Amino acid sequence: MKKICFLLLLLPAFQFVQAQNHQTLSDEGYQDNKIVFQVVTQDTLAHKALMKQLNNIRSVAPNTPIEVVCHGPGLYMLVSERTVIQKQLVEQAAKGISFVACEFSLKERNVSKDAVVPEANFVRSGALEIANKQRLGWSYLKAGF
Amino acid sequence: MKKICFLLLLLPAFQFVQAQNHQTLSDEGYQDNKIVFQVVTQDTLAHKALMKQLNNIRSVAPNTPIEVVCHGPGLYMLVSERTVIQKQLVEQAAKGISFVACEFSLKERNVSKDAVVPEANFVRSGALEIANKQRLGWSYLKAGF
Amino acid sequence: MKKICFLLLLLPAFQFVQAQNHQTLSDEGYQDNKIVFQVVTQDTLAHKALMKQLNNIRSVAPNTPIEVVCHGPGLYMLVSERTVIQKQLVEQAAKGISFVACEFSLKERNVSKDAVVPEANFVRSGALEIANKQRLGWSYLKAGF
Repeated sequence: MKKICFLLLLLPAFQFVQAQNHQTLSDEGYQDNKIVFQVVTQDTLAHKALMKQLNNIRSVAPNTPIEVVCHGPGLYMLVSERTVIQKQLVEQAAKGISFVACEFSLKERNVSKDAVVPEANFVRSGALEIANKQRLGWSYLKAGF
Repeated sequence: MKKICFLLLLLPAFQFVQAQNHQTLSDEGYQDNKIVFQVVTQDTLAHKALMKQLNNIRSVAPNTPIEVVCHGPGLYMLVSERTVIQKQLVEQAAKGISFVACEFSLKERNVSKDAVVPEANFVRSGALEIANKQRLGWSYLKAGF
Repeated sequence: MKKICFLLLLLPAFQFVQAQNHQTLSDEGYQDNKIVFQVVTQDTLAHKALMKQLNNIRSVAPNTPIEVVCHGPGLYMLVSERTVIQKQLVEQAAKGISFVACEFSLKERNVSKDAVVPEANFVRSGALEIANKQRLGWSYLKAGF
């Protein structure tokens, strides 16, 4: 009986331990990924958040190949007169991150190639580029909220 | 001639049959998936919709491994004082669904680990966690509308 | 010394060349993809944008297998009385693009199967259908902005 009472007294303590029992999961394999990001939104907050995310990823896994595909309204992230992240684009491109604009989106929005930041390249189809990268083993992340 | 008239009379009936010719596609393989969900939105309607979706998935494929990765504003789905789905989190975690919060997002938003629901664990980077799971054969679904 | 001055004079010209040095990346492999689209939004602009995207993809890679999975509020893209893209649905379906509605979403929204456009079929779970397609090697693209 005394034993049971003693155990009952301990219970709240155990529960407390349980409640604080957060763990950080293993990051094994984090170095081995290739990531293709899709930007379809013109929300500049999403563009800024993506730049932070690129820094975070590279701080944990410095050699991660990353391609950022902009199409639809997301194209404006790469248009010199519209982008709010010109400085970060230069920095990220210098670190080897690839930015590409969809040629269909350029045409539909009457944006000339000269209007696109010099750090970016082009792909015939943003959607097919992202699909193709996945087929080749890249992981896909859609940017935006 | 009579034959043709007869066939013409039948036409509308055939069209009706065609219009109702919906099929339910095979669900073969539905039992064999592992799913990583990404929550980046703080939209509580999206959080509630996700909880329903988890129930639906498990009702069809009860042993599906599922991990829900919350980062950016999506972090608030796992913050005790902010979440609107505390009860469902407890239930889903009890069924083996894993909820993880991104440590970068905690830091950027000045959220302490103690503020996170006890059912959740942590990952160093939400983005790399999702990328890594895809590389390991998990399917990716981005939550939200 | 003269040589250095000469090179310095050339620098701006090189920078200009660099600034215009956009490339269109290779589209090798674009023909080899299968794509599953997820529609969760009821935003009709997103529905229209998706129809354009389907045309673009098929113009570059005409035989790409494509399945469009509609669930949650995205279901309304396939509901006869609600959709704004009825004509395009007929055209795309005639080209072999598959449209499917999630049966869970039908039930939750009290939408009868008869209310769904005749071009569409059904799947037991939209989420599991998308996960399953990814497991089978299809690339995933979430529609919407």
